[in-house]
Amino acid sequence: MPRLHFEDFPPGNIAEFGPRSVTREEIIAFAAEFDPQPMHLDEEAARASMLGGLAASGWHTCAILMRMIYDGFLFESVSMGAPGVDEVRWLAPVRPGDTLTMRRTVLDARVSRSKPDRGFVTLQFEVFNQAGRCVMTLKTPMMIARKGFERDPAAA
Amino acid sequence: MPRLHFEDFPPGNIAEFGPRSVTREEIIAFAAEFDPQPMHLDEEAARASMLGGLAASGWHTCAILMRMIYDGFLFESVSMGAPGVDEVRWLAPVRPGDTLTMRRTVLDARVSRSKPDRGFVTLQFEVFNQAGRCVMTLKTPMMIARKGFERDPAAA
Repeated sequence: MPRLHFEDFPPGNIAEFGPRSVTREEIIAFAAEFDPQPMHLDEEAARASMLGGLAASGWHTCAILMRMIYDGFLFESVSMGAPGVDEVRWLAPVRPGDTLTMRRTVLDARVSRSKPDRGFVTLQFEVFNQAGRCVMTLKTPMMIARKGFERDPAAA
Repeated sequence: MPRLHFEDFPPGNIAEFGPRSVTREEIIAFAAEFDPQPMHLDEEAARASMLGGLAASGWHTCAILMRMIYDGFLFESVSMGAPGVDEVRWLAPVRPGDTLTMRRTVLDARVSRSKPDRGFVTLQFEVFNQAGRCVMTLKTPMMIARKGFERDPAAA
């Protein structure tokens, strides 16, 4: 299996992933467990809300993006984890039946000063619906092993 | 039902919520659906990872926090939504059997300049495990109706 390292994420690099469809059932299931605000659970309440109809919890969209990240490239990356997320913006509702795609842009990449076996990349993700509308952006740092350092990074 | 408005979130206000337990089953179920990295799915793989044992996906901890926010005060707040999240930091693993509590601090509150029926509050959340260790911090803006504006904010 090819493995992606720090060097495979040069600044300015852009890649696209998806599509991933979103069903009404999963929107409601996620909301029932984690974010039971009426606009994420109930069509009628949602129509009366500022969202104008049933829409996924923003946290659900984050979780779906995480899965698209995993399936898109993380599964074959020598990732050493992420310390968090720098910024999330929910720009438009994600509706039942939407089909999402995702664009990854490498904003920044630098080798660790203290640990030469790894680097930090800053990734920007933009999630689009089938109409081409950006529904969410997310910026996050990722720690990843450099090429040629054979030590298992998981043991770091 | 009492309803919380902008005025109920003055800067410096601190409140605590929880506890909420986290099971192995839900850690694995979330990971299987949204973040199938081995350290969130499989005990043996997790032990060999930098997490040193099975731990929840950071996105799962976010989703659990969202539910604690809802159950703690959002259900009775006249919330008008959140445009996103300003910052998430994953500081320590969340393990099977952990019991989480959450502290909310109001960092900032200001009335909207363009729409006098609402205000913006900036909330900081800190999630602690049963040992008192902070496992995650999250900073997020929230839009919320002001007291005395009787128009349904959902129709804004």
